[in-house]
Amino acid sequence: MLDSWNEGAAKSAILEFVRSVTTPGETFVPPAERIATFDNDGTLWCEKPNYVQADFLLRRLNQMADDDPSRRTRQPWKALYERDHTWLAGLMTHVADLTTGVTEAFEGITTEAFEVKVRAFFDATTHPTLGVPYTQLAYHPMVELLDLLRANDFHVYICTGGGRDFIRVVSEEMYGVARDHVIGSASTLEYRDGDIYRTKGLEMPIDDGAGKPVHIWKRTGRKPLFACGNANGDTEMLEIAVFSVLIDHDDAEREFAYRDGAEKVMLNAQMRDWIIVSMKDDFARVF
Amino acid sequence: MLDSWNEGAAKSAILEFVRSVTTPGETFVPPAERIATFDNDGTLWCEKPNYVQADFLLRRLNQMADDDPSRRTRQPWKALYERDHTWLAGLMTHVADLTTGVTEAFEGITTEAFEVKVRAFFDATTHPTLGVPYTQLAYHPMVELLDLLRANDFHVYICTGGGRDFIRVVSEEMYGVARDHVIGSASTLEYRDGDIYRTKGLEMPIDDGAGKPVHIWKRTGRKPLFACGNANGDTEMLEIAVFSVLIDHDDAEREFAYRDGAEKVMLNAQMRDWIIVSMKDDFARVF
Repeated sequence: MLDSWNEGAAKSAILEFVRSVTTPGETFVPPAERIATFDNDGTLWCEKPNYVQADFLLRRLNQMADDDPSRRTRQPWKALYERDHTWLAGLMTHVADLTTGVTEAFEGITTEAFEVKVRAFFDATTHPTLGVPYTQLAYHPMVELLDLLRANDFHVYICTGGGRDFIRVVSEEMYGVARDHVIGSASTLEYRDGDIYRTKGLEMPIDDGAGKPVHIWKRTGRKPLFACGNANGDTEMLEIAVFSVLIDHDDAEREFAYRDGAEKVMLNAQMRDWIIVSMKDDFARVF
Repeated sequence: MLDSWNEGAAKSAILEFVRSVTTPGETFVPPAERIATFDNDGTLWCEKPNYVQADFLLRRLNQMADDDPSRRTRQPWKALYERDHTWLAGLMTHVADLTTGVTEAFEGITTEAFEVKVRAFFDATTHPTLGVPYTQLAYHPMVELLDLLRANDFHVYICTGGGRDFIRVVSEEMYGVARDHVIGSASTLEYRDGDIYRTKGLEMPIDDGAGKPVHIWKRTGRKPLFACGNANGDTEMLEIAVFSVLIDHDDAEREFAYRDGAEKVMLNAQMRDWIIVSMKDDFARVF
């Protein structure tokens, strides 16, 4: 079990928790209540140098500007066309412009047509520095952890701030997580003429921060027994779980070393004695 | 199989469809894609003379007026207090007032505190004319159908216009449907101070009409293979399913006979050759 994990406090604590809730006695939890929720970006797969979905989106935005050059006078297409590195470096701060881009990028197509586009992206694209398809960039020790939990009758869900209908396309092959076990942010949808169409808008709240516990309840009718994340947006999900695990990106050699965007969650982990997993020390291999 | 169903066209068609999608060959459907969705009120349990949830809500509204008599000057509390039968008879037309009542009735409490209230209601309340607890008013032939589908590796979901978090409390014991397989309308929720609270508002779209296919996609990432309903609000769900079944309430003796609120769905069923189940002829027993 957890063969790709080094012996240490993190591995021991996880195995002991799983044992405690599956062994008859005071700490036993019935299988129906064994809900495990995992963030995706930076928790199950690599999120650097960019979110995978940002790559998908930027390619689509470039294509939209090719199709209709008048877009190049408006953000976010303008910055992309002019290779405005200052604007792009602060990408995540341009929320309103980005939302415009995201919601217009795939507006008016059916959910199934969207899936075809996502599939084509994953089939054609490799990671910019690691040089392999994104679908090969799941963290192997985390896939083992998902397997361990399922073998112990946990219901394993992805709970991603990214797009639910984006991740569903690859969740089964990458993580063994069926599409009905993917929770995430989503565009608004509409039924008309016998099919389901994406419309221009984001479902609120998005599946980040305080939105995560709400989404988990909506989907499962329960709070998580086990939760795992790596970023500030996972704080609330980890707060509400019984057993909480934080992935620390401290391995510059095998992956990327960074704690920006994890300041708040790290502080909480230290104050509340959550399990902190060092990718450098606790993972015998990464991918 | 389906022992409480009389032999006839409806039973034969259902058994033949299940056989066709589970037997290797051209019509085979992989288990992961075998999504079955069932309306609840009037499809799985009795919805007359009132929706069960209306009974739950009216009791709460009366209690709210007892707690704060000033409410009796406002609808819907006013009509209840004055026993305004004209207003109450047109209950479902007073949407705005009712929404006020619904959303204020359980505002600001946690999802778990709400569940305690629902449980207490089901434990204490009996059907006004049939005289047994609501939890005994599942249609037995339908419970058999759910069992048959699950035995054939279908993923069976409830998809109710009523409250998701209301039905979750009894779905397992009544139908064998786990709470993560209940899709429905819901109040808005908020995470704060380490818990999940109901807030004043309804999540839109509600799970009725065109909202049903959207909710089913959000939850499962698929369209239903098998769907079953009884009312106009089920039309779109039945339209988008591969195999569609309509329950016709034509049994005044053992249940209630009515087609009001089912005019549109009945017309569609006839035009599109959906399977129509006559409760009178096709059910050997009802409860």
